[in-house]
Amino acid sequence: MLKIKRRKTRTVKIGKVGIGSGHPVAIQSMVKARARDIEASVRQILELEAAGCEIVRLAVENPDDARALRTIKRQVRLPLVADIHFDYRLALASIEAGVDKVRLNPGNIFKPAEVKEVIAAARTARIPIRVGANSGSLRTRSRDLAADLVRSTLAYLRIFERAGFYDLVVSLKGSHVLDTIEAYRKISLRCDYPLHLGVTATGLPMDGIVKSSVALGELLFQGIGDTIRISLLAGPQQEVAVARSMLNSLGLRHFGPELVCCPTCGRCEVNLPEKAKKIEDWLTGLDPKKKRRIQRFKIAVMGCVVNGPGEAREADVGIAFSRHKGILFKKGKIVRTVGLEAGEQALLDILEGEIR
Amino acid sequence: MLKIKRRKTRTVKIGKVGIGSGHPVAIQSMVKARARDIEASVRQILELEAAGCEIVRLAVENPDDARALRTIKRQVRLPLVADIHFDYRLALASIEAGVDKVRLNPGNIFKPAEVKEVIAAARTARIPIRVGANSGSLRTRSRDLAADLVRSTLAYLRIFERAGFYDLVVSLKGSHVLDTIEAYRKISLRCDYPLHLGVTATGLPMDGIVKSSVALGELLFQGIGDTIRISLLAGPQQEVAVARSMLNSLGLRHFGPELVCCPTCGRCEVNLPEKAKKIEDWLTGLDPKKKRRIQRFKIAVMGCVVNGPGEAREADVGIAFSRHKGILFKKGKIVRTVGLEAGEQALLDILEGEIR
Repeated sequence: MLKIKRRKTRTVKIGKVGIGSGHPVAIQSMVKARARDIEASVRQILELEAAGCEIVRLAVENPDDARALRTIKRQVRLPLVADIHFDYRLALASIEAGVDKVRLNPGNIFKPAEVKEVIAAARTARIPIRVGANSGSLRTRSRDLAADLVRSTLAYLRIFERAGFYDLVVSLKGSHVLDTIEAYRKISLRCDYPLHLGVTATGLPMDGIVKSSVALGELLFQGIGDTIRISLLAGPQQEVAVARSMLNSLGLRHFGPELVCCPTCGRCEVNLPEKAKKIEDWLTGLDPKKKRRIQRFKIAVMGCVVNGPGEAREADVGIAFSRHKGILFKKGKIVRTVGLEAGEQALLDILEGEIR
Repeated sequence: MLKIKRRKTRTVKIGKVGIGSGHPVAIQSMVKARARDIEASVRQILELEAAGCEIVRLAVENPDDARALRTIKRQVRLPLVADIHFDYRLALASIEAGVDKVRLNPGNIFKPAEVKEVIAAARTARIPIRVGANSGSLRTRSRDLAADLVRSTLAYLRIFERAGFYDLVVSLKGSHVLDTIEAYRKISLRCDYPLHLGVTATGLPMDGIVKSSVALGELLFQGIGDTIRISLLAGPQQEVAVARSMLNSLGLRHFGPELVCCPTCGRCEVNLPEKAKKIEDWLTGLDPKKKRRIQRFKIAVMGCVVNGPGEAREADVGIAFSRHKGILFKKGKIVRTVGLEAGEQALLDILEGEIR
């Protein structure tokens, strides 16, 4: 079977999380509250951690935000990244407050003297810097957005390299899928820094999921990308859920178990969405320790006999509904048949047996 | 800017819809009601057409379903595809009823004599056939699912080619992203038939959207794929919405206008999801004729001044919210500023002006 070969990169450590080809692709998200609202920020970070987020970023808009990071840091475990724009002194203050990485935007912090001050502080604090260009904040732009992103990023990277600082992560986010793919492909050939992937300003949630999945999916499939952030105009936990689903789908990470269902058609005699939802709810409510016992499981819930038995057989446990009964499978073999109504409960009984 | 170069294929006509590299990538979906429930089927087909579906498939499980197709066909405009499994006589009956294409599954209709009868009927009716293999209904399988899909499809295609029948569309759907990508890549090098893309049995809606976007996005980006179906355990209109969003994101089709929003962070001072939703609702309610006037529009709704002005300037119309005001842009230029609360209405006023 096809396996993704990741592009070779340096390793960068964000707190305890290693980023680069020697490590799994890490999932990050961003707090949507103000950092200076410490209570809301901590609450969101804890929710993000529970959802599976591994690195979390906060916007630092003013000195109060920067100061708040110190208090937030004491109350959470996830590595914190300070998102800095316009004023390099906010980067210095955030480093002072103890963050694990700062992100600078080449489009709005560009004076070499200022960047060098941030480099010196990051070096002393032994933390990395993300060079994060966005199509929406480029200083000069032609009709070729991808080329603009790559050019401005490479020029910016030179400031760091001249200072002998290589503890870098790079991103070049566009709001278009094709620009984003092209920009990352080009930069991937020009440096060996770990790449942080994202599409910026995607749109409403459904479009955002599609755009991010298409762009980041393509790049990850090509082996490009070491940490990802899905930008959605939705709760940050949803960003993490999409990120997990994407990495799962490409076999780059395993956040199991996997639930496989058919889309249903005129052949389906049961309310499959309802039955699948019951399995999902059971999985969601499961104690994490128990869940780990079936982490690599594939669970199939199929509505008819066309692909049902085949998918169910391939799964670790599965049920295929025929016209009159549910056929239960375990590790490729039929276990028993049950009535249509009892189907999902019988599947849950098998799963309960597996986690006991 | 990067542009996708589509793989060169033959052209196949499904009713009035041309499929192949000479035509836009077509969107299809499937009726989730029984075909013999004529009223429900017609209703769903009309809804699908309104949502932007271009080809619609129905499961034909028994002779009643096949007969119903004749009545359904008279009440709808979209080309109809009969989905046939196990019993080749249902294909004959569906062709007799006047469908525009039949789909055969190599995994369960495999006797050459039976296939040849269907070929003869399709030739007489001048309709194409889809050879649609699924990982869940393969007759023999090794550990290499993609290779199995390709091998069984090529063997099946030989039956058609020996009969001098080339009016074919091909699909090889797996429930895994990597298998699906690999199978389509391989078959794309071995024939010049148009390819129907899909991931089968994806899972619950969010996973389904992600898996489909990753797999189909990657293939379409490589120029592979002539018609797509997004399989979701959700309403068929949602399948169409995702398909449109995907083709849009890759610049392969233009179903506009496009709404671009930032994900928001601690910098955002307004309820951006609510404001973006108002714009979306306005677009949804818009008369299709008027909507066409802004079909290529990009509308940006941005929550802060980091990427806001840049994205809004690049859009046809846009608003970037700063701390105290909304800055309205039109074709790259600031039009005026308004209060935070009045922002989205001011944007709608500009849009109203554009469609008048």
